[in-house]
Amino acid sequence: MNDIEIAQQAKMDKITEVAAKIGLDSSQIEQYGDYKAKIKLPVGSQKTKGKLILVTAINPTPAGEGKSTVTVGLGDAFSLLQKKVIIALREPSLGPVMGMKGGATGGGYSQVVPMEDINLHFTGDMHALTTANNTLAALIDNHIYQGNQLHLDQRRVQWKRVLDINDRALRHVVIGIGGVTQGIPREDGFDITVASELMAILCLAKNLADLKRRIGQIVIGYTAEKKPVTVAQLGVTGAISLLLKDALKPNLVQTLAHTPAIVHGGPFANIAHGCNSVLATRTGLELADYTLTEAGFGADLGAEKFLDIKAPVLGKTPDTIVIVATVRALKMHGGRAKSELKTEDLTALRAGYANLQKHVANMKRYGIPVVVAINRFTSDTTAELQQLQELCAQDKTAAVVADVWAKGGAGALELARKVVELSAEEHTFKPLYKADAGIKEKIEQIVTQIYGGTEVVYSPKALRQLKSFAEFGWDRLPVCMAKTQYSLSDNPKALGAPKDFAIHVREFVPKLGAGFIVALTGNVLTMPGLPKVPAANGMDLSDDGTVSGLY
Amino acid sequence: MNDIEIAQQAKMDKITEVAAKIGLDSSQIEQYGDYKAKIKLPVGSQKTKGKLILVTAINPTPAGEGKSTVTVGLGDAFSLLQKKVIIALREPSLGPVMGMKGGATGGGYSQVVPMEDINLHFTGDMHALTTANNTLAALIDNHIYQGNQLHLDQRRVQWKRVLDINDRALRHVVIGIGGVTQGIPREDGFDITVASELMAILCLAKNLADLKRRIGQIVIGYTAEKKPVTVAQLGVTGAISLLLKDALKPNLVQTLAHTPAIVHGGPFANIAHGCNSVLATRTGLELADYTLTEAGFGADLGAEKFLDIKAPVLGKTPDTIVIVATVRALKMHGGRAKSELKTEDLTALRAGYANLQKHVANMKRYGIPVVVAINRFTSDTTAELQQLQELCAQDKTAAVVADVWAKGGAGALELARKVVELSAEEHTFKPLYKADAGIKEKIEQIVTQIYGGTEVVYSPKALRQLKSFAEFGWDRLPVCMAKTQYSLSDNPKALGAPKDFAIHVREFVPKLGAGFIVALTGNVLTMPGLPKVPAANGMDLSDDGTVSGLY
Repeated sequence: MNDIEIAQQAKMDKITEVAAKIGLDSSQIEQYGDYKAKIKLPVGSQKTKGKLILVTAINPTPAGEGKSTVTVGLGDAFSLLQKKVIIALREPSLGPVMGMKGGATGGGYSQVVPMEDINLHFTGDMHALTTANNTLAALIDNHIYQGNQLHLDQRRVQWKRVLDINDRALRHVVIGIGGVTQGIPREDGFDITVASELMAILCLAKNLADLKRRIGQIVIGYTAEKKPVTVAQLGVTGAISLLLKDALKPNLVQTLAHTPAIVHGGPFANIAHGCNSVLATRTGLELADYTLTEAGFGADLGAEKFLDIKAPVLGKTPDTIVIVATVRALKMHGGRAKSELKTEDLTALRAGYANLQKHVANMKRYGIPVVVAINRFTSDTTAELQQLQELCAQDKTAAVVADVWAKGGAGALELARKVVELSAEEHTFKPLYKADAGIKEKIEQIVTQIYGGTEVVYSPKALRQLKSFAEFGWDRLPVCMAKTQYSLSDNPKALGAPKDFAIHVREFVPKLGAGFIVALTGNVLTMPGLPKVPAANGMDLSDDGTVSGLY
Repeated sequence: MNDIEIAQQAKMDKITEVAAKIGLDSSQIEQYGDYKAKIKLPVGSQKTKGKLILVTAINPTPAGEGKSTVTVGLGDAFSLLQKKVIIALREPSLGPVMGMKGGATGGGYSQVVPMEDINLHFTGDMHALTTANNTLAALIDNHIYQGNQLHLDQRRVQWKRVLDINDRALRHVVIGIGGVTQGIPREDGFDITVASELMAILCLAKNLADLKRRIGQIVIGYTAEKKPVTVAQLGVTGAISLLLKDALKPNLVQTLAHTPAIVHGGPFANIAHGCNSVLATRTGLELADYTLTEAGFGADLGAEKFLDIKAPVLGKTPDTIVIVATVRALKMHGGRAKSELKTEDLTALRAGYANLQKHVANMKRYGIPVVVAINRFTSDTTAELQQLQELCAQDKTAAVVADVWAKGGAGALELARKVVELSAEEHTFKPLYKADAGIKEKIEQIVTQIYGGTEVVYSPKALRQLKSFAEFGWDRLPVCMAKTQYSLSDNPKALGAPKDFAIHVREFVPKLGAGFIVALTGNVLTMPGLPKVPAANGMDLSDDGTVSGLY
């Protein structure tokens, strides 16, 4: 059976029963059908009590590392151990679902369900973000058209439109053409919704008041004199906020084994900050003894941003970090092609281990206990699994094999016990940089300590921007790196653990509502494209409503 | 109190109780929070038994005619008379909510609730449509980019992108610029979602199979040899259909007086076919003795399309037509300015009556019993109300004053009794045109018999298109007129009942999935713009989530 068939055969608990498991009665949730709900705000005691487990991974390869699958399987293992656990994942984006990557609900017997709903429209959060984003864009262009009282320079509008779709044809567009009554012509572009500042804001806001405050602070563009103009100045903070009031509420679903899962917020980790919402994670910490959460792509992106951007807002750092790796993916990092992965190859594995090794060292650097979860595939040989564990042991890194796709929680019991043990350890969090360090210093720390690079090369434009940021008082904000997910460097082809490389910052995008500055490196795109044969072409809907071809 | 304050003070019944009133148990609905639900398909007996009441109106003026308010008040009056009734309305579009027109949930003590939810994201139907529409657009541009096996001519792509936003700057755009890897440059444009063919399809589909069939038939563009290319040929019928599988389910809410209301589907009547979904109306007809439904704008648009486009698919014509008029609006049709409407003016009222008179005659022409609902405003004088009733009496038209804004259902009891009486009358439906008549003949019937015009002037482009439609076998399809709502003619300034005018058809848009040909007349826009001070600027959200400024 494939993932969707397994998911469709699941016998789910009613969402009211799932809510009851974490102490929420039916008046504290809003049902969306029988198996999905939004959790009303504020939740519970407002006091965080539980342990926080962050699941991250090596750099992804086409072989797949199964981070979500391990997170879900690990959560179910906690349930089997009678621990009160909540899984906190990100929401899938429809762009990759229709394109190539597929959904984001785990796989095999470690999935969150209802899989189809979560991967399609779910409770509408993405759509609310798209709508709020584009309503703001329309209000901006209308402001310019209707007299432009704020003196926005149409060449300096920074606020882009978005869609939750992979659509390369919208990356660069010219709008407002067609004559006098059709708006003011200007260059514009669309990003994917998950890359939007509103998504970051949704994921970082502590409550509705904080959401509104952040939205008011968004810089939509600049005047001809290069002065920033904000949403608050445009006078539409209220309208944009109310479009997001329901999206801010965390979504409750369940795993195949009925473990409660909060799936909320979904920024990509390459072009955005890559973590699910602060409110979702906080809800977990308030209601459960263990909250398992995942950050996007490899630990160089998602985990770094979790620790440096999200944790300060959350007011809590992880008690254990789980780094997911597979023998297959490490062999690719060691130089093998995707077609060669079924053959045992201890040399390639040893070479590729460098990638895992670097991520482990990075996470240990923050002072947090680390365990490697080796996500088992059927093609892994005993010798390979053994060698990988030995390599970890040589580095004094705990490493446990998990078999979650086939066995669900039962395949991750040992991993769960290890995580419980590590989470009880005393440890002291060591931040990567001081909160008040300058932008260049922060980037240098990330590049040298996390990526393993030697220097940062700024484009002339980026350097000019840094000057103006100093003027505006934005020069001490956290930095959100936009970088390829495939490599520790900004070159997607440099697998393993590249050395002696420079990171190229070509442009900054200040996101004052999110509260950070995005640094665009390499050629990373904020709007993906579709492949030659999109996943959409394999999808179908039967006359009775059964979905197929979703994965 | 204003509308939103009245709505916020409402004590709603749980949606399960509302469902129970029309014989649906909790397993037959999907709850969206406590007060909204989707009705699972298929519903009930699949046999229509109830009476169908169509509520329509005179041409709208800035004075407002209150068609939705009358529909809701009339529904509550049926409830007071102990009749089993369902109200079937359209869903509001966020574009006008943020722009100028406001929401579409009625007003005063005749509203459907939860007002804010319905006017904002509701159950996500609009967003599903936007997403499905733009996913198809991305798949089309990707197909061209990836080798264009279907030989689509990029200058002849007919499928436009959409947003549920008023955004004039997106009416005409150039996409795909930026270089070799950014797509293929071409001219494109965005419509508002409610004008999309998918909205029409959602509103006309009888079930999932019919939805899929229609989606497969959509013509997305033409080859260089001018041969049509369909969604089925692109191979993504399944993917687009599954994005709409939930949106196809009718939404259940209630009035302030707890009358069941189905709010589903929302095409505008000027640029689309203007009726709520066939499934919603059918559900009403199956579950209730009386279904009250509304068609958009004046009877020249919404009602004509209801009778000529929707009714044949529904398999049922109305048993009574209610035409809503106000003294204020008729005085505007009689030549007064909006600022002068508080003064009694029997002369202007008499002159403006010509507009109502024409719509009444048009509806009687279909052979259906008609009653005029005079929607009372506080500024109406007794002499004005009396004169209006006398004018109707002279034309042998039933006319009843309703006072629904202030009194809810109690203000429409006499109207409800009249509707019950008329609905019991024997009558024979007389279609406006034969189903197999040609496009030109159909348009001529609409223009001369409904609009009161003398001739139809086709642009050279429209004439060329008619030729090719004949080749493709599309020349017997129903016609959906796109025309200004403000006038019976295609000139929005010609109020009252203009005579001796021509209708100018500048272009056709074939919508093979919807099953009709759209005729664009005059300067009607398929993407509205925002006004100088958008409604958005008056909206706010308090820290506890209370919305204000929505109307």
